Amino acid sequence: MDYETPQFYRVMQYAARSDRDVVDMVSGSPDWDPPAALRDGLRAYANAPADDYQYPPSVGLRPLREEIARRRGVPVEQVIVTNGAGEANHLAMTGGFEAFDGSEILLADPVYPYYAGRANFIGAETRYVAAQTDGQLDPSALREAASEETSVIVVNSPNNPTGAVYPESSIRDFVAIAEDYDALLVCDEVYDHFDYSGKFASALDVDSDQRIVTDAFSKTMAVTGLRVGYVIIEGDSLRERARTRHMLTNVTGSRPAQYAVAHALESTPPRYYTEVRKRVRDRIDRLTDSLDDIGAVYTDPDGGFYVMARFPEFGGGFDAVYELIDEAGVAGMPGAAFGESFEEWIRFAVCTDRVETAGARLEAYFE
Amino acid sequence: MDYETPQFYRVMQYAARSDRDVVDMVSGSPDWDPPAALRDGLRAYANAPADDYQYPPSVGLRPLREEIARRRGVPVEQVIVTNGAGEANHLAMTGGFEAFDGSEILLADPVYPYYAGRANFIGAETRYVAAQTDGQLDPSALREAASEETSVIVVNSPNNPTGAVYPESSIRDFVAIAEDYDALLVCDEVYDHFDYSGKFASALDVDSDQRIVTDAFSKTMAVTGLRVGYVIIEGDSLRERARTRHMLTNVTGSRPAQYAVAHALESTPPRYYTEVRKRVRDRIDRLTDSLDDIGAVYTDPDGGFYVMARFPEFGGGFDAVYELIDEAGVAGMPGAAFGESFEEWIRFAVCTDRVETAGARLEAYFE
Repeated sequence: MDYETPQFYRVMQYAARSDRDVVDMVSGSPDWDPPAALRDGLRAYANAPADDYQYPPSVGLRPLREEIARRRGVPVEQVIVTNGAGEANHLAMTGGFEAFDGSEILLADPVYPYYAGRANFIGAETRYVAAQTDGQLDPSALREAASEETSVIVVNSPNNPTGAVYPESSIRDFVAIAEDYDALLVCDEVYDHFDYSGKFASALDVDSDQRIVTDAFSKTMAVTGLRVGYVIIEGDSLRERARTRHMLTNVTGSRPAQYAVAHALESTPPRYYTEVRKRVRDRIDRLTDSLDDIGAVYTDPDGGFYVMARFPEFGGGFDAVYELIDEAGVAGMPGAAFGESFEEWIRFAVCTDRVETAGARLEAYFE
Repeated sequence: MDYETPQFYRVMQYAARSDRDVVDMVSGSPDWDPPAALRDGLRAYANAPADDYQYPPSVGLRPLREEIARRRGVPVEQVIVTNGAGEANHLAMTGGFEAFDGSEILLADPVYPYYAGRANFIGAETRYVAAQTDGQLDPSALREAASEETSVIVVNSPNNPTGAVYPESSIRDFVAIAEDYDALLVCDEVYDHFDYSGKFASALDVDSDQRIVTDAFSKTMAVTGLRVGYVIIEGDSLRERARTRHMLTNVTGSRPAQYAVAHALESTPPRYYTEVRKRVRDRIDRLTDSLDDIGAVYTDPDGGFYVMARFPEFGGGFDAVYELIDEAGVAGMPGAAFGESFEEWIRFAVCTDRVETAGARLEAYFE
């Protein structure tokens, strides 16, 4: 499995070459504004003394780490600020693969392609556990796939691409499976602010030195380009190894971005998060209304930015996606780019205010 | 060899606990202001549209890459923007160690400790080549240390900690040695704007797909905390591997920092760089005047921020540094933290406007 970006660009470039207007539902980059306080934070930083332009602590600015620790209910020592969720997952997966015996990394199928790309890059074998049609990951299927070769298990809730939010019982089972097979559970919670079900359960609620939680402000604050994420690690030796890897890879993350996020955490009213969540949820509803009219099967998302849909007598490969671009003027991502179990499906990101247009175009095409 | 930060903190913490006033000459973080245009760039970014808060291209913002390419005289495709020189050196060393046969990384002694720490971390053996007393690295000594076990050679000019600027003939020899032993030369040029000798020669002047140049704006623009650096790679397969590693590690670097640096490159008058260089050079002169009075031996720096000094009948270990903190009120870094060949020396960073006070205190202590 290749990692996401080249495949993502392949679709974007195809859409850009099209003669017609195309609604972009390919990318998961928010099209809405970051909190006003985040911009204020950048303005304040622009006037900060020269000292504030020098290295922050390698593990991140202290007020930012403290606020993360407070919100997540963990000791501040467990928090390492990273260059986005990307570095957080890198530290977690690479560190886990080194620390725990076994040649394999277990992933869900469909999979966020960066997990698969990173596993390949570090020389791990990958084993996939097919998600159910509703996007849930059955703990007994995960347990069946686990073995003494399992080194790391990566899950993601709310899930990209399926929109599933794993219930607390599943999260507990995932941690237990990691413990039973001497492996590490990595739980990526980057969409944690986009739970529409009220059922989101963090892996932090399960104490274990065999689970790591990764997260970022990229989606929460609509700042994928700022690269401020974090990893929470309970186990001392795993954490020390991650701190060292972070230092020797990046020294530290970018300070203005950390400063701005810390300021935004402090000064953003709760309604910012509520309104953004409502906006995304409304867009999902508008898209699924059209999918209902078409008679498509889809994962009704409990969280996140994405709807996976399977259209009647239609595929989920690049050809199908290109046909929708050309004939309907709507661009999604091929389900085949995320694995085998949803290869007849297409993923639509609702990071556009033209969801109704997209829905109407799909209805017209499939009617 | 441990990497720098813990040792660096050890000295900083000792100095902080001291009852007396201590001039900090430990850290190489500039104490001067970044260019005004860099702050303007951050202000402009704070008002940028929401789109500008999303992922930049993984390899960096195009205008920034183009300006780097123009200034360094290389095709833009060779430039990957990184999270500071730290990530640039990480990509170069790790990629080289994978691509070129051999179990060893060759380093100069004294060494910038991050190179040694990273080599250890990725499982490479290290072999050190002692610098001359003037800080220069003799190409014939490097050639003697090279063997078929050599995978990567890391040099740094202007040099931290010795202040040596390697002449063009040395740079050519270093590249030739890498080519003769099927190895990669990594040349870290992060202090390239701090050449007082006029003799600085970039490794970019030697065409080879077996050399990588790393650099950053951290020192040039006094922004170690912004984390904007770059790597220039001529060879296609090395570069592709570095792009993939960069994407799977960090996805991309922080966008406001890249934006601000691009703006500063465009709008900063040459006199900013001239004045900063002159300031550092003046501080070096004031410090070495005192060292002359004391009768200390020192590396008269041709470049960079550091003076290595050996005092009459005095050591260069942590005990000696602690004694200078307690008795003279001046904090430097133990030469022993950089290797064996300068373990009787102490490194002083001139990143403080209290150089004269430090010099006077050292004179009083050693008189």
